[in-house]
Amino acid sequence: MVQSPQGEAFRVPCPSGATRLFAVIGHPVAQVQAPALMNRLFVDRMVDAVLVPIEVAPADFPVMIEGLKRIANLDGILVTVPYKFVACDHADHLDEAARLAGSANALRREADGSWTADNFDGVGFVQGLVGAGHDPREKVVSLVGAGGAGTSIAPALLACGARLLVLSDVSAERAMQLAGRLEVEWPRRVRVASAPAAAESDILINATPVGLRAEDPLPFGLDGVRADAVVADIIMKPAETRLLKAALARGLRVHPGIHMLSEQIELYRRFFRIP
Amino acid sequence: MVQSPQGEAFRVPCPSGATRLFAVIGHPVAQVQAPALMNRLFVDRMVDAVLVPIEVAPADFPVMIEGLKRIANLDGILVTVPYKFVACDHADHLDEAARLAGSANALRREADGSWTADNFDGVGFVQGLVGAGHDPREKVVSLVGAGGAGTSIAPALLACGARLLVLSDVSAERAMQLAGRLEVEWPRRVRVASAPAAAESDILINATPVGLRAEDPLPFGLDGVRADAVVADIIMKPAETRLLKAALARGLRVHPGIHMLSEQIELYRRFFRIP
Repeated sequence: MVQSPQGEAFRVPCPSGATRLFAVIGHPVAQVQAPALMNRLFVDRMVDAVLVPIEVAPADFPVMIEGLKRIANLDGILVTVPYKFVACDHADHLDEAARLAGSANALRREADGSWTADNFDGVGFVQGLVGAGHDPREKVVSLVGAGGAGTSIAPALLACGARLLVLSDVSAERAMQLAGRLEVEWPRRVRVASAPAAAESDILINATPVGLRAEDPLPFGLDGVRADAVVADIIMKPAETRLLKAALARGLRVHPGIHMLSEQIELYRRFFRIP
Repeated sequence: MVQSPQGEAFRVPCPSGATRLFAVIGHPVAQVQAPALMNRLFVDRMVDAVLVPIEVAPADFPVMIEGLKRIANLDGILVTVPYKFVACDHADHLDEAARLAGSANALRREADGSWTADNFDGVGFVQGLVGAGHDPREKVVSLVGAGGAGTSIAPALLACGARLLVLSDVSAERAMQLAGRLEVEWPRRVRVASAPAAAESDILINATPVGLRAEDPLPFGLDGVRADAVVADIIMKPAETRLLKAALARGLRVHPGIHMLSEQIELYRRFFRIP
């Protein structure tokens, strides 16, 4: 539940039989913040719709999403970890950002019943960075994680003017594949490494799910990171991850995950054609 | 939206990522009252759950419900017109009332992931009749409609002690099939007819969807109905159907559809093991 500034639970109109549906799918899903933000949007805009969370195991995902797509009053789907890649397989059309990332975080039903996928993680994340005063233009950025979110954030950083992107992932192959796609559009501005370029980087970003659980290790070490660097996380819950805590303890500036989502709400609104 | 007695819209806590889901499936679904009543129950009991409406076309129903059953945080499904028969095909176990009716209006996920179906229309409807002072015990009852609701109401009337049940349906075959099943349990108390036994009946019930739409004809005529008879409808929206209006115009007592559902809320609560 969302607490209002007054400390009371935020409330929404009771759904009726005529209410339109939106869903956010994840595994796990308990940590997602999209229900709070999107339902607030529906209330503010007086739209009779509700967004609900869907938890589904990987083996059940294909049958589940094909079932979901048949619901006539379901207008849109948000997708989070670990389903952003496979979501593309269930879309009929991919918009530019989803095509470049090879992953999607939003699917929209079209008037003809087909489904269009897009990925707003990258644009949302970069807008959040810029808004917080951490413009990546001309900067060296280390991005850890070439998964569902990282594949979207990487092209958005380059499109925004980052001078050099240092990519790493537990799967070197996955990092190489993404670098290969980016090299076509932005030659000589991407490097694959086994770890962030600590001494060079102006901005270091965790785009992995490592940190969602209290017992997770740090997604990357902070030794050698410059004192003027910014450490960013895409994890929203906890708001202050172990990584951000460690960065703060070293006196570094930090950028929490919620910005990526809060910047996306307006992008989702336009994508889903919410008035 | 539900209006509170103060005229304000009834509100529920904003769903979060941890919210449990329930659904009511229909075609159409805009008229269903279950969201208002079940969501009120969740609020009253401080259960973090929400029930949402699902509209699905008949051709899409099998794929949709199999997908729905894979959602790990979906604990229960209510089923309305026209899916109460086919719902049985998607359950692993049928409780007694669903078996006898051959139709189901509620499915529950068990701890082992299997699904159990039951049908509370009959018990809910009869409880509503009794509560309104129209006890069917020792009475002659004409029931029009041997569909999803009628098949559940018929055995509940007999179990409650109705002396004679006069069954009719646009499909004589469907009425005969139901009568055959009932005859085994309650011999010589069921008659199949092409229309209600107007002059004999103490209670006449519409258990068809005829009346949901403003342009629908009457589900049965009222000529020859006794002045002391009760005319009941299972349709909830509009609250005052054409049938009930016509009965009131003749000075008859009427029994609206909402009772069947409101009586079922406590039955659903126990079936879904809501605290």
